[in-house]
Amino acid sequence: MRIDGRDFRTIWPNPDGATVAVIDQARLPHQFEIVTLKTVEDAAAAIRDMTVRGAPLIGVTAAYGVALAMQTDPSDTNLIKASDALTSARPTAVNLRWAVERVRARLTGLSPSARFDAAYREASLIAEEDIAVCEAIGEHGVELIQRAARPGKSRIDILTHCNAGWLCAVDWGTALAPIYKAHRQGLPVHVWVDETRPRNQGASLTAWELGREGVPHTVIADNTGGHLMQHGQVDLCIVGTDRTTRNGDVCNKIGTYLKALAAFDNSIPFYVALPSSTIDWRMSDGLRDVPIEQRSPREVTHISGLTEDGEVTTVQLTPEGSVAANYAFDVTPARLIRGLITERGVCEASETGLRSLFAGGEMAA
Amino acid sequence: MRIDGRDFRTIWPNPDGATVAVIDQARLPHQFEIVTLKTVEDAAAAIRDMTVRGAPLIGVTAAYGVALAMQTDPSDTNLIKASDALTSARPTAVNLRWAVERVRARLTGLSPSARFDAAYREASLIAEEDIAVCEAIGEHGVELIQRAARPGKSRIDILTHCNAGWLCAVDWGTALAPIYKAHRQGLPVHVWVDETRPRNQGASLTAWELGREGVPHTVIADNTGGHLMQHGQVDLCIVGTDRTTRNGDVCNKIGTYLKALAAFDNSIPFYVALPSSTIDWRMSDGLRDVPIEQRSPREVTHISGLTEDGEVTTVQLTPEGSVAANYAFDVTPARLIRGLITERGVCEASETGLRSLFAGGEMAA
Repeated sequence: MRIDGRDFRTIWPNPDGATVAVIDQARLPHQFEIVTLKTVEDAAAAIRDMTVRGAPLIGVTAAYGVALAMQTDPSDTNLIKASDALTSARPTAVNLRWAVERVRARLTGLSPSARFDAAYREASLIAEEDIAVCEAIGEHGVELIQRAARPGKSRIDILTHCNAGWLCAVDWGTALAPIYKAHRQGLPVHVWVDETRPRNQGASLTAWELGREGVPHTVIADNTGGHLMQHGQVDLCIVGTDRTTRNGDVCNKIGTYLKALAAFDNSIPFYVALPSSTIDWRMSDGLRDVPIEQRSPREVTHISGLTEDGEVTTVQLTPEGSVAANYAFDVTPARLIRGLITERGVCEASETGLRSLFAGGEMAA
Repeated sequence: MRIDGRDFRTIWPNPDGATVAVIDQARLPHQFEIVTLKTVEDAAAAIRDMTVRGAPLIGVTAAYGVALAMQTDPSDTNLIKASDALTSARPTAVNLRWAVERVRARLTGLSPSARFDAAYREASLIAEEDIAVCEAIGEHGVELIQRAARPGKSRIDILTHCNAGWLCAVDWGTALAPIYKAHRQGLPVHVWVDETRPRNQGASLTAWELGREGVPHTVIADNTGGHLMQHGQVDLCIVGTDRTTRNGDVCNKIGTYLKALAAFDNSIPFYVALPSSTIDWRMSDGLRDVPIEQRSPREVTHISGLTEDGEVTTVQLTPEGSVAANYAFDVTPARLIRGLITERGVCEASETGLRSLFAGGEMAA
């Protein structure tokens, strides 16, 4: 994607062939900085501090992290040590463990001298695969946007929640990929960006990446989407997912369920964009089966932003003595979802739908 | 209501018989200060600066404002001048105009020397009437809370949105009145407080007043209520209303509709507490008829809070160049509302329901 006219990815190997560059997402949207990862410790720290975030991007960063470890010490001992350090940086990130294991399996049996090159190539391969999946989601999803255009209406209004854009992947993103494709095709898309309290990934990350790419958008409080839908100001919704059950229930950022209810109540199509890697074939009832992470109440009681002096400062919003609760995700039942946009096409949010695209083989996953 | 064990109202005449005291709500929740209103200009400024807010409280403040004007110059000319100054302080506040007109009508025909006393008494009467209405709402609503108690559950979980507490009235409040009554009866109530972006009246005002009264509560992001309802963590919802159509549609703070949808989807009773003064008998379709105020986008892009140094500071949340939209209210259709809690009892959210309590006469209003 583009930032002020220049092509960027969220992570890329530097021309020196020895280090890796990432966008420092912890500083967005108020500061844009590139960080160089020189060692496996740098990579682990970038994951831990949320310099990089989003499941696909964390995985790719960890894969490059293994390569950086092999550069200085390609021994078996160091391979194990590096893998452990990386996977423990965000213990619950399934994708992180998967990526590290994949690179490690690739290196097993190779002579130490061949390991750095092989790890570096495998990390690049994971990145390219992720881009291809996201771009395919974009291609399938753009047809839905074309269909949502309404005669006599000058723009196509799409509502999204949280950040499922290119910042959480390597390029394109998931929910935003169809929007970028549509914008490049010249479709008059406009995005309603839910700010997505408490971490505000919409107001900070989604608004930022849409702005840099030049996609028209408007930030709204999370409370607003229902009103817009009641008044014909939303033509379709597209969101991402952290985990999709085999019956099509979707676990995504807290608040997604409320928007799906409003879309259903107003007969507005509600789509979920997902790489098939988010499908959890073992689960058949999202409400019953998906554990919901609770995060620090401080994310609700405090917030960071830019002061008039240009400093990033944290302020407290709640009175002394009031406690807060912080549930990170909710589950949207399949009955409220018009369709799932995958890298293999669009399907119904149901086991039948998913099996029409991903037949059988993935059951073992 | 109590603040740290002491009884307070939001507004009261000082013992000097010449001035009026109000709680400075613009400084809550981080600072608690009492402001003395000595002149009609003070009263108008308090309304304009939102030192006082909430329809009933604005009305009472304006009524006392007329009295303050009569203290220094009880002429007809000054009565007109003061009335104009007060009503233009918040031009859209219907209650403000109503209260000023009521005091003015009371003074017409009185000799100038009698006007200050009469105005002061009329303002006190308006305040007492408001308290009686709110307390009656509390008495009727507490029965619904008693009924919501579930066997085997140690507390009664009530979700509310925005601030419909005693801070918006003189005492008791509307949506919170039944909760205060229940708490004083020893019922184990716990309140989920929607923070209510963008102006955060829940996180700042509702949390503050519940905390001072000692009512257990937890602040949550507006995105959270649906998840809590899906998991049996909400027993009933009570919210306020700014305007109620004669068919029972409710115009309240933006985001109310989303919570009503979630309550309906999970068979959780959703009640609206209202003084009958909010009923607009001229309107029969909230979605079609109620105009929705749009406020400054800055309320979305910026937020105020307390820094570590104890200063109240404003920070920017969104990236440079991203615009925001700020719709202040939405309409919840009557079909999603289990009942209306009024000063005359609880009724169905319908014209039949409202007419069973308020028969006919109010049509002229």
